Amino acid sequence: MPTSLVTHTLARLAERFELQLLGDGEQVIDCVGTLADGSPTAIAFLANRSYKSQLIDTRAGAVILAEADAADCPVNALVAADPYLAYARIATLFDPRPVPQAGVHPSAQVHESARLADTVAVGPCAVIGANASVAAGCIIGPGCVVSEDAVLDEACRLVANVTLGHGVVLGKRVIVHPGAVIGADGFGIARGPDGWEKVPQLGSVRIGDDCEIGANSCIDRGAIGDTVLEEDVRIDNLVQIGHNCHIGAHTAMAAFAGVSGSTRVGRNCLFAGRSGAHGHITIADGVTVAAATMVQKDIMEPGTVWASGIPARPIREWHRALGHLRKLGRQHKRNG
Amino acid sequence: MPTSLVTHTLARLAERFELQLLGDGEQVIDCVGTLADGSPTAIAFLANRSYKSQLIDTRAGAVILAEADAADCPVNALVAADPYLAYARIATLFDPRPVPQAGVHPSAQVHESARLADTVAVGPCAVIGANASVAAGCIIGPGCVVSEDAVLDEACRLVANVTLGHGVVLGKRVIVHPGAVIGADGFGIARGPDGWEKVPQLGSVRIGDDCEIGANSCIDRGAIGDTVLEEDVRIDNLVQIGHNCHIGAHTAMAAFAGVSGSTRVGRNCLFAGRSGAHGHITIADGVTVAAATMVQKDIMEPGTVWASGIPARPIREWHRALGHLRKLGRQHKRNG
Amino acid sequence: MPTSLVTHTLARLAERFELQLLGDGEQVIDCVGTLADGSPTAIAFLANRSYKSQLIDTRAGAVILAEADAADCPVNALVAADPYLAYARIATLFDPRPVPQAGVHPSAQVHESARLADTVAVGPCAVIGANASVAAGCIIGPGCVVSEDAVLDEACRLVANVTLGHGVVLGKRVIVHPGAVIGADGFGIARGPDGWEKVPQLGSVRIGDDCEIGANSCIDRGAIGDTVLEEDVRIDNLVQIGHNCHIGAHTAMAAFAGVSGSTRVGRNCLFAGRSGAHGHITIADGVTVAAATMVQKDIMEPGTVWASGIPARPIREWHRALGHLRKLGRQHKRNG
Repeated sequence: MPTSLVTHTLARLAERFELQLLGDGEQVIDCVGTLADGSPTAIAFLANRSYKSQLIDTRAGAVILAEADAADCPVNALVAADPYLAYARIATLFDPRPVPQAGVHPSAQVHESARLADTVAVGPCAVIGANASVAAGCIIGPGCVVSEDAVLDEACRLVANVTLGHGVVLGKRVIVHPGAVIGADGFGIARGPDGWEKVPQLGSVRIGDDCEIGANSCIDRGAIGDTVLEEDVRIDNLVQIGHNCHIGAHTAMAAFAGVSGSTRVGRNCLFAGRSGAHGHITIADGVTVAAATMVQKDIMEPGTVWASGIPARPIREWHRALGHLRKLGRQHKRNG
Repeated sequence: MPTSLVTHTLARLAERFELQLLGDGEQVIDCVGTLADGSPTAIAFLANRSYKSQLIDTRAGAVILAEADAADCPVNALVAADPYLAYARIATLFDPRPVPQAGVHPSAQVHESARLADTVAVGPCAVIGANASVAAGCIIGPGCVVSEDAVLDEACRLVANVTLGHGVVLGKRVIVHPGAVIGADGFGIARGPDGWEKVPQLGSVRIGDDCEIGANSCIDRGAIGDTVLEEDVRIDNLVQIGHNCHIGAHTAMAAFAGVSGSTRVGRNCLFAGRSGAHGHITIADGVTVAAATMVQKDIMEPGTVWASGIPARPIREWHRALGHLRKLGRQHKRNG
Repeated sequence: MPTSLVTHTLARLAERFELQLLGDGEQVIDCVGTLADGSPTAIAFLANRSYKSQLIDTRAGAVILAEADAADCPVNALVAADPYLAYARIATLFDPRPVPQAGVHPSAQVHESARLADTVAVGPCAVIGANASVAAGCIIGPGCVVSEDAVLDEACRLVANVTLGHGVVLGKRVIVHPGAVIGADGFGIARGPDGWEKVPQLGSVRIGDDCEIGANSCIDRGAIGDTVLEEDVRIDNLVQIGHNCHIGAHTAMAAFAGVSGSTRVGRNCLFAGRSGAHGHITIADGVTVAAATMVQKDIMEPGTVWASGIPARPIREWHRALGHLRKLGRQHKRNG
């Protein structure tokens, strides 16, 4: 098993992340842990109220927590205004993730016209197409395909088996997880006399700085102009972004979220799991869409919360409710 | 940025696509654009009524539109019976998509028993298995896996990182986008005395001419016979087609659509995003299934439209409606 | 077309699988078939009541069926307590799936520090990272990426283009279908002063013996501890399992099922297509979640069945029911 072999004293962590230390500053921390499972050299955190009951019995070496919880902590503590954010930053110190060395693996296939900065790492069996441009510090993992004319700014990471279509543009520090596809053709078909005719998808995709795209998610290229994600958009796994969508900065979308073509989503929006929006609509800044909810029309009021998902019920009770629903649909017909 | 470097005069486009020219036939067109963003040498189109207001101020070099809109067009126009279809055809002239040259990349792994036509292009790190057969004009993109005994008819394109299972058969001009998987095992499990036992999936997949399969979509192989898509079926991203389904010609399915095993979908059906059908049912020709709708039973009436999706509401209003729904489910129990 | 070239007499099948033979034991069987399409040398089965009407006209060489149906069978029969299970076992004899030979393909990239048993097969363009360990009988298909420190126990099969993240652990006989991603980062983000900050995902994924993971499904690595699938968990295509989930043994999940982070699902649960569970909840053993159903809270009663999906209705009837629903949400506001 990989171990990080990294150790820090609690005092050092408090100083580096500007947190208040309560307890033994010489306590050595060498990993993160949960309140329930923490080892004596692990640092845990308390951010979600529902885990408060685990604080009293924790065996962690230290806990990152809010001031209000400090009195109930049986072990050393770091007091933070935002414990989860403090945890996120501290945890980066203990990440055992292997970092590939710069250089092009002999089995990688880099087109002669592609431009790669010296510090780029290209993994085994990765493919980089003609005229592609990959800036300093990028990591192109094994099996990734970077198509012709794609442009990656500094410090992007394509983890493995990622596909970037031709001409796709990534900003700085973009992370793309395995199996994601950025820049496949949008779904454009027109009815012709003998069946469907394909509508060429002539735009591309532009992804802003600090975006992250989850595993097996798809972001389609535009039909005419580009599909755009502004900076710091965070996309979970198995998400679909249709052609010519424009997603505002800092918006986050959980798994199975989907946005149909030409829809404009504001900044700082949250789309919960399996939520979605129809095409050709506009959603204001700061809108939250609850799980399993389908937005069909423009939402113009910033900061509003919308829902249409239905929580599970015991199946017989649900079938009775459905029976009533069905009756409502039929009654109205007779009455109206 | 890639530019097409292609130019056509408006008169030439009118002649080639049999459209009526209004205005200056010498106008040079070198790209497509939207009504709102069009450059003076771009051709735009007006097909969706809701964009009519943009026509008056358009700066495009020309607009493809219906006769009824021609009087309101401030620039040159091409009049078409179906402006979207005319646009689709004209746009193909300006597609900057790189076309790979025929030939097998040195890093591709083609089994010695595979049969490839001379004009096939096989990209870097693609793999073609034993006894596979790839007809003239096919393009097998980087990282694609064509398994043993697969058969591709003329002019198919597997874009990148596509997987075709063993024995899968594609018709002519089939396009498969990155990450799609055709011919993985269907989900067949039987309860045994000690847990699940796998039901072997002995069928294959047959895809008709002119089908298109979106990124990261899955079409499972049949359990006994084959899973079949007839000709001109159009599948968006992240769609699931279960084992032994039969999808009729010209049917289209948007993202997250799913059809469970052994279901038969008619010709010319439309499945909107996140719609689906249960297994072992039959859906007539020309049926439309609205977004987020679940078809549970046979639909025998051709051309009907079905729905069960719920549009988003402000969350408090929705929670009140849910409260009523729950009461309906419980009341019935007492009354009945 | 591939043919299995395997033949068995009916008497031999009856003996091997301990079934009762009715009819001609010398009947030769060389494939499986359906009741409707069976050839004279195919063996079919009858397990689903709705196919009973096909039994009378079947042209199959023999049928596997329950004792109660034997009198209606016009051809030879094998009588089984569980015909579907008996079929599953017999069908494995006729699987034409090509089995790769042991050995590492010359184009595969195996890190010098990886440990592979002699009997492992590694396909073209597969990549195996540093310190990975692959036990006897494993098959690593073309284009698969096995990252650093991953551990595969005996007889696993990664079909093609599969990605395993660093440190992921698979038990014995695990099958992973094309495009599946095991061990991508969980979706962990914390709000910082300037936007989202990434929460490092320091755990891994542990998959038990005899699990099967469908095409393009995603199982995320844990944030602190590991994401765990116990033994014999069966996952269909396009399924999402969030970080730090724990899925009990013998649980099965159909396509588009999704479980959010830190949720604990019991043993022997069934999740139908497009069902899901919120994060941080617990679901008891033997719970069934119907199609398109969203579990939002703990389910503590083992063996219960839950639902919230809505079957499709003719669209006008559904729109009327929706109108009533909307009214219910608004009325309550005035009244309460």
